[in-house]
Amino acid sequence: MIVEVAPTARAADQSSPAASNVPGAPTPSIHADRSITFTLKAPEARTVQVAGGDGLGAGPFPMTKDADGTWSVTTPPAVAGFHYYWFVLDGVSVNDPSSETFFGYGKETSGVEVPEPGADYYAIADVPHGEVRAKWYLSKTTGEWRRALVYTPPGYDKNPKDRYPVLILQHGSGEDETGWTRQGRAQFILDNLIASAKAAPMIVVMDRGYATRVASPAVKFGPGSPLGNAKLAFSAFEDVIIHDLIPSIDASYRTIPDREHRAMAGLSMGGMQTLFITLHHLDTFAYIGSLSGPIVPDLDSKQPLDGTHRAPFDTKTAYEGAFANPSAFNSRVKLLWLGVGTVEPEQFRTGIGEAALALEEAGVRVTYFESKGTAHEWQTWRRDLNDLVPRLFR
Amino acid sequence: MIVEVAPTARAADQSSPAASNVPGAPTPSIHADRSITFTLKAPEARTVQVAGGDGLGAGPFPMTKDADGTWSVTTPPAVAGFHYYWFVLDGVSVNDPSSETFFGYGKETSGVEVPEPGADYYAIADVPHGEVRAKWYLSKTTGEWRRALVYTPPGYDKNPKDRYPVLILQHGSGEDETGWTRQGRAQFILDNLIASAKAAPMIVVMDRGYATRVASPAVKFGPGSPLGNAKLAFSAFEDVIIHDLIPSIDASYRTIPDREHRAMAGLSMGGMQTLFITLHHLDTFAYIGSLSGPIVPDLDSKQPLDGTHRAPFDTKTAYEGAFANPSAFNSRVKLLWLGVGTVEPEQFRTGIGEAALALEEAGVRVTYFESKGTAHEWQTWRRDLNDLVPRLFR
Repeated sequence: MIVEVAPTARAADQSSPAASNVPGAPTPSIHADRSITFTLKAPEARTVQVAGGDGLGAGPFPMTKDADGTWSVTTPPAVAGFHYYWFVLDGVSVNDPSSETFFGYGKETSGVEVPEPGADYYAIADVPHGEVRAKWYLSKTTGEWRRALVYTPPGYDKNPKDRYPVLILQHGSGEDETGWTRQGRAQFILDNLIASAKAAPMIVVMDRGYATRVASPAVKFGPGSPLGNAKLAFSAFEDVIIHDLIPSIDASYRTIPDREHRAMAGLSMGGMQTLFITLHHLDTFAYIGSLSGPIVPDLDSKQPLDGTHRAPFDTKTAYEGAFANPSAFNSRVKLLWLGVGTVEPEQFRTGIGEAALALEEAGVRVTYFESKGTAHEWQTWRRDLNDLVPRLFR
Repeated sequence: MIVEVAPTARAADQSSPAASNVPGAPTPSIHADRSITFTLKAPEARTVQVAGGDGLGAGPFPMTKDADGTWSVTTPPAVAGFHYYWFVLDGVSVNDPSSETFFGYGKETSGVEVPEPGADYYAIADVPHGEVRAKWYLSKTTGEWRRALVYTPPGYDKNPKDRYPVLILQHGSGEDETGWTRQGRAQFILDNLIASAKAAPMIVVMDRGYATRVASPAVKFGPGSPLGNAKLAFSAFEDVIIHDLIPSIDASYRTIPDREHRAMAGLSMGGMQTLFITLHHLDTFAYIGSLSGPIVPDLDSKQPLDGTHRAPFDTKTAYEGAFANPSAFNSRVKLLWLGVGTVEPEQFRTGIGEAALALEEAGVRVTYFESKGTAHEWQTWRRDLNDLVPRLFR
């Protein structure tokens, strides 16, 4: 109810408020070397730290209090891209009131956007824009109304006879259906690729990667939870995708409803889900992408779903023998895409790299993509999407 | 990356986790009498309180710590509906990691949904659903890309020749374009009204109610900011609506682009903006709704924009004489709708009630709506919308 005219905040050293800040908030502030200044007013606090995603550095970073009761710290230069972060205020992890929050770690979490010089592929540009639509659909599998976010490409409404291929694109563990458009900026990546004719116009469907069957106990995902196996974890979601989501999308949008015009990709847990679901349903999907998805070739074993307990990748038996006949696989699958960032934790890099190598040596056609210098974070997945999407439906 | 099977949380007294909780969080928990239990694990904290919107009660409510380091409190019975809230942790206002956040108070803020028995008009039901679309457009006024959220009614895509009237619907101060669909559940209110044929199918456009002209200093809105006047506060946004938003919407959607099929309404600050903009542009709008909008009849005066410094409502001079000729106004304006909750602060109730009475006595046709027992909060505005929308375009 209150209005004032205030000058735009700008620090003396020419650092700039992060694009992820709430309007008017001067911090977090990004310096030219990608170091970041964080502040929090907390006169009564005894200790305040900043902690967050790998790309922020080795933290947590202790903050120091000034005479005014404002704590601050400037962290070392960060990896470019989006990082989750939080304050640890007298031992409790809390969000920064100065930043937007993003659904990650199973809850709303502060985020900070660090620009990457020269990387404009995920910026909003003066090109035709698609829309991102909230689509509610009733799931027979779960008995609940679910929300998917649906990117429709530029021109979708203007060309009411045109039909489009579909990419189903999934978030990671602890995230939700908003991840790809908020943290990932997928809609702008698609807009830019389509505007430059690098990608075919397509519909992108982003669903919530959790599902509990009617009258079953909830399946809980998130840091600190114990082990499971892929079948237990993902079979209800598989049914949602195959029996609820795809029919609803095909009924609601002008799709080309066949396997040659349907792709699925996902990041991290979403990559595991993609391999789990698509390799069961090659009659439904012809394009497959796993972005930093841990390789879990034995779908029945009781093993961590983060790739840390890794068996050698046996192309004959992995994923229930999906790759056992390479020429049959190659004639069926138009794209098998695997990617990882070069500074991700060892279990991701080695597991994904070894699987890609084993598949290639066995004669399976696979596209392997490394994102240089990026971690198990969204900058890796933005680059992945920018590489993957032009390979679809061509 | 982690998966487990966990029983659904349920407290011994049959309280239920709020619908606004993040998945799996047992608190906030709503009791049958609408009292609410909040918890926060903070072993090192010295004091923790809960505070929030008026409907939560007179707080802040001190919490007490158990042997495990978890602080908790059960607040008195709350008003039904959506309430913003936060913890005060050693003097710092922080969000509850167990709840979704909602943009309010100029930042991401925890929210708790308290059911209202028998009120199903804002629930998602098994009826045809519209979509909520994120629409980006370039504003010449501000020089920036802006995002509007656009509700398209059920059947919009299936009937590509049909054209629809448009309601522009604005949030309050400190909120943003997401407020009406997240806090307000406007899409479900519309779906339900349209399904029961109580309302005409329509497009609803929700924009971000802040604008700064190119190369001008930012206009800051939010609690604690000093005074302004309506012209200073809202003229840039007026230009965005008239010159940028409406042309973009009319170019992108199958609207009926004339005044008889265009409405504007808003809550609180959005109500002020609605009166400010529509009364300047009766060639553009035929339907006007101000929901708990402070009455600020002198657009040039330096006065608080919350209705606290109220002059008598002179129908001859208010709003630059817009009501000076009641019969001319009545023949031009199809609906002038004013509403307020009966437990809102005095300046809202009295200001709005007096204006409605003065207008009626002067012969201006006005619809005045009171929401019984609700505060300057979203339950008032949900009810308002449910009353207002059926009166549009009929």
